[in-house]
Amino acid sequence: MKTLVTGAAGFAGRHLIDCLLSQGHSVTAADLQPPAESYPEGVEAAPLDVTDEQACWEVVHNASPDLLLHLAGFAHVAQAEANPQRCLAVNTDGTRHMLNACLDGHAGTRFLLVSSAEVYGRVAADQLPVTESQPLRPSTVYAASKASAEMFVHHAVARGLHGVVARAFNHIGPGQSDEFVAAAFAHQIARIEAGLQEPVLNVGNLEAVRDFSDVRHTVVGYLACLEVGQPGDVFNVTSGAAIKIRDIVDALAALSTETITVEVDKERLRPLDVPVFNGSGKRLADASGFAPSFDLSATLADVLDYWRAKVAGQPVR
Amino acid sequence: MKTLVTGAAGFAGRHLIDCLLSQGHSVTAADLQPPAESYPEGVEAAPLDVTDEQACWEVVHNASPDLLLHLAGFAHVAQAEANPQRCLAVNTDGTRHMLNACLDGHAGTRFLLVSSAEVYGRVAADQLPVTESQPLRPSTVYAASKASAEMFVHHAVARGLHGVVARAFNHIGPGQSDEFVAAAFAHQIARIEAGLQEPVLNVGNLEAVRDFSDVRHTVVGYLACLEVGQPGDVFNVTSGAAIKIRDIVDALAALSTETITVEVDKERLRPLDVPVFNGSGKRLADASGFAPSFDLSATLADVLDYWRAKVAGQPVR
Repeated sequence: MKTLVTGAAGFAGRHLIDCLLSQGHSVTAADLQPPAESYPEGVEAAPLDVTDEQACWEVVHNASPDLLLHLAGFAHVAQAEANPQRCLAVNTDGTRHMLNACLDGHAGTRFLLVSSAEVYGRVAADQLPVTESQPLRPSTVYAASKASAEMFVHHAVARGLHGVVARAFNHIGPGQSDEFVAAAFAHQIARIEAGLQEPVLNVGNLEAVRDFSDVRHTVVGYLACLEVGQPGDVFNVTSGAAIKIRDIVDALAALSTETITVEVDKERLRPLDVPVFNGSGKRLADASGFAPSFDLSATLADVLDYWRAKVAGQPVR
Repeated sequence: MKTLVTGAAGFAGRHLIDCLLSQGHSVTAADLQPPAESYPEGVEAAPLDVTDEQACWEVVHNASPDLLLHLAGFAHVAQAEANPQRCLAVNTDGTRHMLNACLDGHAGTRFLLVSSAEVYGRVAADQLPVTESQPLRPSTVYAASKASAEMFVHHAVARGLHGVVARAFNHIGPGQSDEFVAAAFAHQIARIEAGLQEPVLNVGNLEAVRDFSDVRHTVVGYLACLEVGQPGDVFNVTSGAAIKIRDIVDALAALSTETITVEVDKERLRPLDVPVFNGSGKRLADASGFAPSFDLSATLADVLDYWRAKVAGQPVR
């Protein structure tokens, strides 16, 4: 199976490539540049700026993929809010460009847009866990850019493309930027263990409850969406777990060799926060063998080991 | 009440202005250029290209409106399909520009986006008449541009704007371009009556069933949306009528002084056609005094009179 991944050098992209290689796919990895640690052996690297429509066309035509998993995009809500034009150019126009490239001679490609649970916006407590039929009420530029990108998938489906949408909930794992919550905590703890920081963990809102998955489970979910999705189908990709941020802190503290004190840092409170947000993975579970599951402590052990290695200056993937 | 209308020189815009003036609003009419017959007395004209963000800001700041009805946009599905970039620049970016202009100092403005029933895409017969909770599955560039514009209304609502969305179904009346079906038929009949065309009416698919309103009723519906809508609310604006295109032909033929023969012209068959499409106006009716109603023959009599005057070279509004 010839498979093209955009955003291949990103956090989920790299785990997706590992998963694809283990399943025997022939992988083309497209991103602005390769990851620092380079792609695994056997992967075809394709430099790609998705805001360049012609470049998208060339990558699709060169790869001529059976599957295309479109992960390229701004992934961080606050960065998107600070650069709305760029976020829209990458997330929305970039998706349109990839869709148009497929429609222009490769309409047989099965296309997955990796969208985000952020598209739902603030959801009333009695509508949780949120299902795919919830109306879209994006409350951030990032969310609006993804919701708009979804609209163009449906447009491409009407023109004959086999397009499917995955709405990813939070996912964590080794390799994630410490701009995200679990990685931020693990990075601090690794620095504390290395004697580079006082044994004080700076945190934001610990009471928020969010739906976390292990990224290595999430990418399996993406492939399940492509496998079972009919054109225009939309799936939540979620673990089904509703986890309080405090539980992440406590689990990491328990994994640490040091005794950790926790301090709330107002700089880390995300804007537009909602107390509880989680999703239903029932649609994808019913349609495929993808069963929601998550072992928080096991994932966090891997995350902490990743940051220990990184802080120690060891090579990491 | 200070009220700003964009797309003011368009078909619905001109009827909306008549309605606003009759209710005592102080109206600023923004559009690329005034209508051929100029705006009614007392209306402040504001030249505006909504693709120019700075120009949007200036119009909003000069008008400082209590209400803003954003009608500006590509209105014709086939034209949008032929010019996707321009359609997106006008319908989606133009909406963002107007929203941003309001958020920058005029967040107290009540903002209505006039979106379209096209955002629903193809809807299964058992989901008709379609309600506002139907998932968005835009199947045309026009529909995707409007669905994306809706997403940015929700984003602006999250930032504090009182934004509401109206999803307009088909509306007809005097002044509509003959690129739309009822006007196209009426124009032909007026030409037949004037001896400028053989007594043969060229038509497209007569079996399609659509939801038609009188534009003068539709614009009252827009104001009802603004009056009762909470931030982020979405309303169908519909007559509740499901009308076969053939009924429009028959009603116009009955209104004509000539005997008309009907001929199907394949050039007039719209792409991506669906047999039946109509909407539920229950949400708006329940929330306001806006009762769906439509007298097809009365509206068509006005449409035919408009085209008779136009064909005769008389001044029309």
